[in-house]
Amino acid sequence: MTDQPAELFKQLTHGVYVIGVGYEGRCNAFTAAWVMQVSFDPLMLALSIHPHHASYKILKEGGVFSVNVLRADQQGLARHFGSPTSTDKLAAVPWHAERTGAPVLDDVPAWFECTFNHECSAGDHRLIVGQVVGGAWLDHSATPMNYRDTGDSSRLYPDGF
Amino acid sequence: MTDQPAELFKQLTHGVYVIGVGYEGRCNAFTAAWVMQVSFDPLMLALSIHPHHASYKILKEGGVFSVNVLRADQQGLARHFGSPTSTDKLAAVPWHAERTGAPVLDDVPAWFECTFNHECSAGDHRLIVGQVVGGAWLDHSATPMNYRDTGDSSRLYPDGF
Repeated sequence: MTDQPAELFKQLTHGVYVIGVGYEGRCNAFTAAWVMQVSFDPLMLALSIHPHHASYKILKEGGVFSVNVLRADQQGLARHFGSPTSTDKLAAVPWHAERTGAPVLDDVPAWFECTFNHECSAGDHRLIVGQVVGGAWLDHSATPMNYRDTGDSSRLYPDGF
Repeated sequence: MTDQPAELFKQLTHGVYVIGVGYEGRCNAFTAAWVMQVSFDPLMLALSIHPHHASYKILKEGGVFSVNVLRADQQGLARHFGSPTSTDKLAAVPWHAERTGAPVLDDVPAWFECTFNHECSAGDHRLIVGQVVGGAWLDHSATPMNYRDTGDSSRLYPDGF
């Protein structure tokens, strides 16, 4: 009764986001799907991030992060910020700082910014819990990207449980 | 630049699930949207649950939970398991136990079952991190329900940040 995990896990519904971090003039951004709301009062989000990711260190140092919602048609932007490269990915994409200083992309339908609250372990990742301190819904006609509709990620999954 | 949180938070993408818990013959199930994958190795999910929820206690006692994925057309089932009532909601819906004993609904397109690993705080909720020990993808033609397409939840949000 057990399927291949790669296909099974696609039945969970995740969005696709560009997470922005910044600390003392160093900014970075990366594509992530593992983001969700976790609290109403205060309003909080959780983000699961690999601790070896360069942005993890900047997030912890700066204590802030942005969550940029991608539209269904922004797969190019998702790939741009999802590729493992040491170049400055933000140099090629217009962005600005809002209240926290974490980079907010200019061309996204919605964004949130958060202050780091705490973290906890989550297997090979770390769960970052942040308080939402601002945000905007800019494009009321946009459909947010669904992770299920993006490329094949089966290489990341084991063959069975 | 800050919108009403209720509309803004709908730009995050969540699915809709029925979470099943069981301990020593007592079973319960409830509708939840705040579920996501958080780790590849081991395969882990996180679930945000209000600690006053009756199922929270059973989940902690039993140390297991199931995540039943709802189809886009199962809004009636979402409402059934989302209503605050003391009646036995599982009595009206066919279900069975798999490996962990947590209730798995018969008519869902996919399900996971998890063993409790640890929890951490998350504002007014608790974040439960569970290791996925089994699951199945039963209906390959189904579209999972998107929380954004369900009813109005604006009463749960404050008027501003």
